[in-house]
Amino acid sequence: MAQAMNSEHRPNDKIDVLIIGAGPAGLMMANWMAHCGVNARIVDKRGTKVFNGQADGLQCRTLEILDSFGIAHRAWIEGNHMLEICLWNPDKDGLIRRSDRIPDTTPGISRFQQVVLHQGRIERFFLDSIASKSDIRVERGVMPTKLDLDESLAEDPDAYPITVTLRHLSEEEATPKQTATSANGSVISDGLFRSNLSPDDTEDLLRKSELNDKANSEETVKAKYVLGADGAHSWVRNQLGFKLEGDSTDYIWGVLDIIPITDFPDIRMRCAIHSASSGSVMVIPRENKLVRLYIQLTTVGAGNAGKFDRSKITPDLILRSAQKIMAPYKITYRYCDWWTAYQIGQRVGTQFSAKERIFLAGDAVHTHSPKAGQGMNVSMQDAYNLGWKVASVVRGISDRSILKTYQSERRRIAQDLIRFDHRFSRLFSGRPAKDVMDEEGISMTEFKEAFENGNLFASGIAVNYGSSTIVAKSGDSVEQGDGSDVATQNEAYKVTSKPSLASKVEIGKRMPSFKVLNQGDARPSHFQELLRSNGTWRVVIFPGDLTNSRQAERFTELGKALGAQNSFLRRFTPGDARHDSVIELLAVHAGHRQKFTIFDFPEAFRPFDDKDGWDYWKIFVDDNSYHEGHGHAYENYGIDPGEGCAIILRPDQYVSYVGSMDDYDAMDRFFSAFMIEQSGQKAGNVREPLFDVGVAPGDIQENVAVRVGSSTSLVAA
Amino acid sequence: MAQAMNSEHRPNDKIDVLIIGAGPAGLMMANWMAHCGVNARIVDKRGTKVFNGQADGLQCRTLEILDSFGIAHRAWIEGNHMLEICLWNPDKDGLIRRSDRIPDTTPGISRFQQVVLHQGRIERFFLDSIASKSDIRVERGVMPTKLDLDESLAEDPDAYPITVTLRHLSEEEATPKQTATSANGSVISDGLFRSNLSPDDTEDLLRKSELNDKANSEETVKAKYVLGADGAHSWVRNQLGFKLEGDSTDYIWGVLDIIPITDFPDIRMRCAIHSASSGSVMVIPRENKLVRLYIQLTTVGAGNAGKFDRSKITPDLILRSAQKIMAPYKITYRYCDWWTAYQIGQRVGTQFSAKERIFLAGDAVHTHSPKAGQGMNVSMQDAYNLGWKVASVVRGISDRSILKTYQSERRRIAQDLIRFDHRFSRLFSGRPAKDVMDEEGISMTEFKEAFENGNLFASGIAVNYGSSTIVAKSGDSVEQGDGSDVATQNEAYKVTSKPSLASKVEIGKRMPSFKVLNQGDARPSHFQELLRSNGTWRVVIFPGDLTNSRQAERFTELGKALGAQNSFLRRFTPGDARHDSVIELLAVHAGHRQKFTIFDFPEAFRPFDDKDGWDYWKIFVDDNSYHEGHGHAYENYGIDPGEGCAIILRPDQYVSYVGSMDDYDAMDRFFSAFMIEQSGQKAGNVREPLFDVGVAPGDIQENVAVRVGSSTSLVAA
Repeated sequence: MAQAMNSEHRPNDKIDVLIIGAGPAGLMMANWMAHCGVNARIVDKRGTKVFNGQADGLQCRTLEILDSFGIAHRAWIEGNHMLEICLWNPDKDGLIRRSDRIPDTTPGISRFQQVVLHQGRIERFFLDSIASKSDIRVERGVMPTKLDLDESLAEDPDAYPITVTLRHLSEEEATPKQTATSANGSVISDGLFRSNLSPDDTEDLLRKSELNDKANSEETVKAKYVLGADGAHSWVRNQLGFKLEGDSTDYIWGVLDIIPITDFPDIRMRCAIHSASSGSVMVIPRENKLVRLYIQLTTVGAGNAGKFDRSKITPDLILRSAQKIMAPYKITYRYCDWWTAYQIGQRVGTQFSAKERIFLAGDAVHTHSPKAGQGMNVSMQDAYNLGWKVASVVRGISDRSILKTYQSERRRIAQDLIRFDHRFSRLFSGRPAKDVMDEEGISMTEFKEAFENGNLFASGIAVNYGSSTIVAKSGDSVEQGDGSDVATQNEAYKVTSKPSLASKVEIGKRMPSFKVLNQGDARPSHFQELLRSNGTWRVVIFPGDLTNSRQAERFTELGKALGAQNSFLRRFTPGDARHDSVIELLAVHAGHRQKFTIFDFPEAFRPFDDKDGWDYWKIFVDDNSYHEGHGHAYENYGIDPGEGCAIILRPDQYVSYVGSMDDYDAMDRFFSAFMIEQSGQKAGNVREPLFDVGVAPGDIQENVAVRVGSSTSLVAA
Repeated sequence: MAQAMNSEHRPNDKIDVLIIGAGPAGLMMANWMAHCGVNARIVDKRGTKVFNGQADGLQCRTLEILDSFGIAHRAWIEGNHMLEICLWNPDKDGLIRRSDRIPDTTPGISRFQQVVLHQGRIERFFLDSIASKSDIRVERGVMPTKLDLDESLAEDPDAYPITVTLRHLSEEEATPKQTATSANGSVISDGLFRSNLSPDDTEDLLRKSELNDKANSEETVKAKYVLGADGAHSWVRNQLGFKLEGDSTDYIWGVLDIIPITDFPDIRMRCAIHSASSGSVMVIPRENKLVRLYIQLTTVGAGNAGKFDRSKITPDLILRSAQKIMAPYKITYRYCDWWTAYQIGQRVGTQFSAKERIFLAGDAVHTHSPKAGQGMNVSMQDAYNLGWKVASVVRGISDRSILKTYQSERRRIAQDLIRFDHRFSRLFSGRPAKDVMDEEGISMTEFKEAFENGNLFASGIAVNYGSSTIVAKSGDSVEQGDGSDVATQNEAYKVTSKPSLASKVEIGKRMPSFKVLNQGDARPSHFQELLRSNGTWRVVIFPGDLTNSRQAERFTELGKALGAQNSFLRRFTPGDARHDSVIELLAVHAGHRQKFTIFDFPEAFRPFDDKDGWDYWKIFVDDNSYHEGHGHAYENYGIDPGEGCAIILRPDQYVSYVGSMDDYDAMDRFFSAFMIEQSGQKAGNVREPLFDVGVAPGDIQENVAVRVGSSTSLVAA
């Protein structure tokens, strides 16, 4: 089905999903559409992608998400890994000294740790991922000029209620000032080895030349859904009349991306340096020998209008500030890659969507200080939350009720982020207290604690979505979210989880990951590696120890229910789609791998396909591996091998439900609350007669086409 | 220098290195040339690279080598991982049963384990790696027709003693039968999802169309060195009149690459199945649901001439044999990707080079059974052994004496391989013994032991090069190699290792790898990850515990000697080359990371560069990491932290020498035996005056150019 939708060649003016803005949030959305086979276009008014500067931290959760699309390893290989944070504070003589070291990523929270890499590379990985799965290409130099939503059609799933006028810009119009500086600077013209312009960006630059073909023309398109991922100055947000709420502070910071020449010993660590009275510096070591310095500019005040005077700020002024703060250590540079200055502010959007038809994500709905490394991460995670929901509705799998959870879940995160950033910025920009009596100063103990707690928050792992149609947990969905009502409307479908059956799995959080072995080939995988982002829900059965006859019996009965013609696995899966394209069934048992083969499991867990035979990639075991140790998944998930459990996971890896391993009815109710019954379900696969009756070997393959053959001998003549 | 040589635009007809054959051996050689910046061309008479079938196992050592070029992760991600070998033998009733399980890769020998991936993908990774580092491109449809070596010029380093005539073929001539079948078959024409033709091969196919432009023209080129990597039927070998020695057996095997439909429970394991009297099957599970079956054909005999009749063999006949051997389990398929048949033979070349000017590698000098998964691996490892030596001589770093070690080291490996394969094939193809009295049958206990021992051999990790100019170990170089004399000729340069100082490091084997931390940023790396293949030798100093004052003193003294103007580090490095481009100096100390900074180390280990400041990537520590445990490198290398040691590593990661940590003279002698003193060494880098005298902060950066700048505020307007 995915393939079919992509290749249908609809008229160009009808689009299921139109994405405005090709930064990290827009590209994440486009990537979801590509991986789910949804018809989409993505436009950006800029002529090329970003080559220098810009956000650069990739938190653990972001890496987990990138990995679910198969691209995290590229960031992991290219990025700089930050392991330790060093806190430098004034000693009693007012000289800065290293006072503490804390791990940059809290050990154990994820299989990834934070890395730092230029935003342009992340965008490249997305572009490659999108191209590998679809015909979607970023259309650059294309700017929306008119946006209209016919609200009367908002709830009609077949309608295209949004009308957008797109203007194709000339190359000159499509080149923002910053990129122009970059293009005229050293990066492109003298080909320095450390250029951020990688060979795989060549195609991107060539495409610029196509801009002028359509220059100054306009087109009008109809869309089912629109995402405004067009940044802090969001045109889409302005069209909708939505506001950002919050305010700015007086703190002004400069940013230098340099190759430092310094005797400061921790320059390749992430550092928070508080000087006695000259302000603070944050050190972020980067790839290609670069270091980013966030430098407080205490000599530049905000003007009358609460805005600082940009013209006064130069790289030299920023460097001098750093030198003062870091004295007696010396620092200078011969190579500067990028620089900027900003005033700290925290704002969050009042609404994240108009009628769940036009959505906003990323900087368009939240702005804050860059120092916690959250901007790009939260933006991508907004779109990661939204993408599968929109795809699922467009594909006719889910009803529109799930779309409300986007604002409930993500606006709440933005509010939390703004609160976190407000406190963190104040602690970072304040003057250190001289002693306990200095009430106006910042306690360095409080700062350290905030940093440690902040690290877990900033990792993205702590995100905990509230109760809703798609998160079956106790509590008030209004309180747990941003105030929107996202509870299941039909009482008959309400489902109650039994969290104690997996005591270390938190409903609403992303599924933790431990190593398990494939039953069929003994290969260890992190459990999360099995949860690829392809729009599929997962029902994961932990049947426990199958040598326990009660568990074996429960499992067999469950297998029958799941394998039945009218099971929810079949009812919600379109007739022409693969058996696991809507809901994938996985099992992780607690026995010894070598005592079982896949043929000891109900066929629902190893579905038969007439071309591919049985499926060997659905059954796993919590056992020791040859080379990568024992994942102890049952213990780490808090699951009793004598009892087992069932866990439902959303397509974005968040935990929806924990219940009894054989409570088929509860699972059926859960999906029935928002999934759409499909007509024309296919009959179960017909198994090879070979395996049902006693056909002699050799009776079958006579009808088999040999696709490619040769009979070259490997022996030398 | 590397860059300079590549961009010099020499006349097309003078080539430093001409590589004939673009299979795995030829591509490995071209990749070395690319990574060392050596002028090279690579030609292949075929019009496209391989898309189906062909060798597919990647042993641990091969993955280590690919990783040193930055491409192992691609194989690791795409390939199928084989974890367990299941041995199936007849029980007392003659029915096959699983009798044993053994790990496919011996645990602990490498940070990689064997994976299986189609040869075409490996070639693709090489092509990308070559293109990322050089202008070298495979010239397809180009066939040598004449080869001449002027032996009188063989020892002149500046001469181009080899003359080769190259013929540019028409597309028809350049398309071998196998590829033609493939091109007309399903793979390309119906675009099956499991096609081996990946998107990144498109460019390759397009290039085919360029073939005809030069069709039927000829050119004559002069080369300093030629590599014949042109396969079992090697034209280069035939031109040189070199022979392969060995013979064929009567065993005939078929190969099927299929998606199996079977109730055999271990089909996703590597299996060795011995039936009671119908022959044997080897199961190799592959990527994309494919499984390769090696199937003994007991019904097809070798003819009178000792050759079997190919025309009798069909996929159907091969499948029927498999069905007989695997009964009572059933097996068939609907998709066959490729098939072939071969007769086992073991042969090895009499000579691996002509005057160390024209070399042979890969199938051109050894052929054997494919079942041990050695062919592609040993071929690549041949070229991996040769490439850096040739590059080093071409670059004027080393004299020609090191080239003799190629035959000494690799022909010995080929001889060992042939012996191993002979025994293994006999055990595999023989009929299982009925009982201990059955002397003609094969003992299944012996088979299991051979399999286990064979696994270590087959991993490539056990390779142990003999004593020579570049391997300072005791023993007779003639006996330890293939019979060539490769000992150091000048007695004054003979060096004796002290193996007991690193009791678990074997001189002549590749350096084992354990995790160490970077002193400057706390990042854990496998030690091997520091040993990138770029043509650089490494001197690794293990100074031990530097809180021990004797060790600290020895280390300081050594630092002075290494940092001196006349040290071997400088004498052998061309004046215009980076300080670490010929010999890189690394340190791994045994203290606690947090007690030191890089400024506690002699400057030789953190060289200063006027643009980049100090080098943070040369000093490491054997300490605990935050997320990846403790590597215990000193313990695992058998090095006493109270004594330390110095280890010299070849550019291919093999251990040349183990000695006292401060025996500067021995290290100097070692390199002096074959390295060429360079004229025009540059003076030491001039350090920033900022760091030598008390210049006030801010005095320096005024002269610094800011390359790229902007002052965009991150605050929303």
